[in-house]
Amino acid sequence: MRHIVTLITDFGTADGYVAELKGVLLSGSPDITIVDLTHDIPPQDVEAARLTLARSWRRFPEHTVHLVVVDPGVGSERAALAVASQGRFLLGPDNGVLSPALLAGGADVVSMPIPLHASATFHGRDVFAPAAVRLAAGETLARLGVPKSDPVIRRTPDTRRRGDGSIAGQVMLVDRFGNLITNIVARMSGTVEIGAHTITVMRTYSDVAEGSLVALAGSSGFLEVAARGGNAAAALAVRRGDPVVWKPENV
Amino acid sequence: MRHIVTLITDFGTADGYVAELKGVLLSGSPDITIVDLTHDIPPQDVEAARLTLARSWRRFPEHTVHLVVVDPGVGSERAALAVASQGRFLLGPDNGVLSPALLAGGADVVSMPIPLHASATFHGRDVFAPAAVRLAAGETLARLGVPKSDPVIRRTPDTRRRGDGSIAGQVMLVDRFGNLITNIVARMSGTVEIGAHTITVMRTYSDVAEGSLVALAGSSGFLEVAARGGNAAAALAVRRGDPVVWKPENV
Amino acid sequence: MRHIVTLITDFGTADGYVAELKGVLLSGSPDITIVDLTHDIPPQDVEAARLTLARSWRRFPEHTVHLVVVDPGVGSERAALAVASQGRFLLGPDNGVLSPALLAGGADVVSMPIPLHASATFHGRDVFAPAAVRLAAGETLARLGVPKSDPVIRRTPDTRRRGDGSIAGQVMLVDRFGNLITNIVARMSGTVEIGAHTITVMRTYSDVAEGSLVALAGSSGFLEVAARGGNAAAALAVRRGDPVVWKPENV
Repeated sequence: MRHIVTLITDFGTADGYVAELKGVLLSGSPDITIVDLTHDIPPQDVEAARLTLARSWRRFPEHTVHLVVVDPGVGSERAALAVASQGRFLLGPDNGVLSPALLAGGADVVSMPIPLHASATFHGRDVFAPAAVRLAAGETLARLGVPKSDPVIRRTPDTRRRGDGSIAGQVMLVDRFGNLITNIVARMSGTVEIGAHTITVMRTYSDVAEGSLVALAGSSGFLEVAARGGNAAAALAVRRGDPVVWKPENV
Repeated sequence: MRHIVTLITDFGTADGYVAELKGVLLSGSPDITIVDLTHDIPPQDVEAARLTLARSWRRFPEHTVHLVVVDPGVGSERAALAVASQGRFLLGPDNGVLSPALLAGGADVVSMPIPLHASATFHGRDVFAPAAVRLAAGETLARLGVPKSDPVIRRTPDTRRRGDGSIAGQVMLVDRFGNLITNIVARMSGTVEIGAHTITVMRTYSDVAEGSLVALAGSSGFLEVAARGGNAAAALAVRRGDPVVWKPENV
Repeated sequence: MRHIVTLITDFGTADGYVAELKGVLLSGSPDITIVDLTHDIPPQDVEAARLTLARSWRRFPEHTVHLVVVDPGVGSERAALAVASQGRFLLGPDNGVLSPALLAGGADVVSMPIPLHASATFHGRDVFAPAAVRLAAGETLARLGVPKSDPVIRRTPDTRRRGDGSIAGQVMLVDRFGNLITNIVARMSGTVEIGAHTITVMRTYSDVAEGSLVALAGSSGFLEVAARGGNAAAALAVRRGDPVVWKPENV
């Protein structure tokens, strides 16, 4: 039987950390299928890793093990978590990166012991990968650690509904295309105000002319701002955290 | 039986799009082996994806499914194609990116319906990956859509043969090493003129001194210009599309 | 039975070289499991590839084939090596990149013939990948080539012990996080001098304040210098090769 172990890290691949981690997984279990989700999370960017996990973890089949190692607190007192949620397993530091699974309802969480021989700077290799091997071998979550009652939770910031029906939110992520993904639940009409621009919500990129700005319902269910065939983040000089307002058509 | 599904995208890996797409594939079929060819096609660069596909698609075993998602027209009226060619399958938008397989002779092409629930911005996840799952499960091409008679074709630009036997072409690609790959079919002798430089065709890099320019028969069968141990594109300030001329020895 | 073939290259993934190489592997043997270790070795940086191999090759199970293609001398007279060492196989050019396995004791080494049809610029595809297929199919090392008695060896530079007990070394690698990995075997106490800075050796990053410099025992067994939550290489303007000195506490 094949055991899927996915990897989300901020290691990059140039330095050999990913190589070591994969060696531990494949030495531990010949049946593991490693699936690279990303090693390009910006260094120590827990929030970016949380968002990547949020949009992908439940798309994998049950029994999948998601290994998420973005871990600025490695070697400190922060707990090393193993989580069972919605039929999947997740392994990662207790810094909020696993929140999507922790908040999904019915999650079991344990805190794993740190072996004496573990490097103080590379728990991905010495703590989380060995735990993935044990889960792939059929070991129960309860055997991996002791129950953890108050894991760190990170949430997408709330939006604010104003009296006129408009909704104030922010840019959560700038993607590779320069698209600005917000925390405002997708709408099919109205306008988006960002910087000094007012942009009409359309269905897709090609509803506007090449180079023009467009707002639309993004693929993960939130409003996005894009530039057709261009880079909206560059065009608008907007960054993560900048404010965005959606207004219904009649405002 | 293992079903190979290769991925060529311009998604990068930092943002979670690749993660979602892989989740759909692996949830759809436990027998799929995902093979990352590249996620580093420059954003919306259909031509670069076409060239990557051209040099690799027939090297994979029969029944391989190549999923090619470089799709600036996503959500528009452009068709979503499924192709059977030379024993392999290919899935991607109707923008010319699949031309190497469409031109290979005996290709079958269908246009797939876009499900109502599909995101208008992410057909890789909602149209092409589900089609890959169905092909991996043994479904025939004919079941995926309706015949498409006039798919968009992109071709490598023709070279021009001059009266003196020289051949005028252009730089098709600048690779990671700064090598300039042209559209002139490889020669084993003569000279290459590019910018203000005349460079002798040699057999390999080490036929010239460290740092010197060299022209040679590249690994995909076209003339290339390189700088031994260096970066020819930077040294010559040459870019994709710039003119190149090959001259036989006696000219 | 699954045959693991790992890849370490300087190809990047944008250009299709990795795609071609994977096609050759999977066409050659349906039982190969390809494991990407890295394609982000800086172009022609044999030393970086050697270090990545050193920290990872023995972590993989026996019978693993490590394919290491960082090959500035491709097409020249340099030999193409196949190595059996510690139960693993390694394939790569004779430029020192395979030294970690060659130095491990009991290594068998052969020099492989270059087929006439091989591209003079892409032995990864035409020489090393086909050899990986043959090893995966159970062929012996002896069948791949003729014994090679004097392969090129690269070594980590020696450190120098001074009269006062301090140790002089150098920065071997700057990783993605800006951590400076030295060639001084890890210590748990004392100080590190680098540039004009004197930095106390601690256990882990969080033993110092956010943004502060810290020296510690790195995960591969050597002293490292890091900036907690920051980038030590940028903060110190230090590069690979720069001198580092460790001093015991009582000096």
